[in-house]
Amino acid sequence: MANIFNLPSELPDRELFEPLVSSNNILIERIVSTGQTTPSGEWYDQEKDEWVILLQGEAELAYVDGSRMALKAGDYLLIKAHQKHRVEYTSSDPPCIWLAIHAKFQQQ
Amino acid sequence: MANIFNLPSELPDRELFEPLVSSNNILIERIVSTGQTTPSGEWYDQEKDEWVILLQGEAELAYVDGSRMALKAGDYLLIKAHQKHRVEYTSSDPPCIWLAIHAKFQQQ
Repeated sequence: MANIFNLPSELPDRELFEPLVSSNNILIERIVSTGQTTPSGEWYDQEKDEWVILLQGEAELAYVDGSRMALKAGDYLLIKAHQKHRVEYTSSDPPCIWLAIHAKFQQQ
Repeated sequence: MANIFNLPSELPDRELFEPLVSSNNILIERIVSTGQTTPSGEWYDQEKDEWVILLQGEAELAYVDGSRMALKAGDYLLIKAHQKHRVEYTSSDPPCIWLAIHAKFQQQ
């Protein structure tokens, strides 16, 4: 058993992406951010849907339509496949701890 | 956007099971427990794998081999399909908030 809030004693300068469960059709990963943002002018454009929850820290996402979303601990959202988005802000103290589930959610 | 820690002002006596994402192959749900346990002599025996994380409260699980696991906020584990288990304890103050992902995790 492991704990999602346990962090390495020293965090690297880059974001940490750690698969917790990885299979053909689903990826559950922990992401630890310490101030990193999506590089200027770049967008995430993902093949799969992503359900993501921020469990620690504060962050801000942006969409191509110009809308922004401020997230605090416990906030979750669904980002559909190919819904372009950017990370505009992540707190470093405390670090952001995200739990992300990547899969194809074919709605019934 | 919603927050996993937002609870109804009055919780019912039963456990709350709330699907957050539901599709053919995956269910992401929030479970809120307030002292409930699995009825005596009964076991969960699930068709799908379950990845589960306790996000608030304290709880205890048991397996058929007699082993027990005490969980605190942030602890997560994978319960394989047909791995029989019981919930032996859930705290009511604060309520337990679980995030569970039910799917078939065919390991690569």
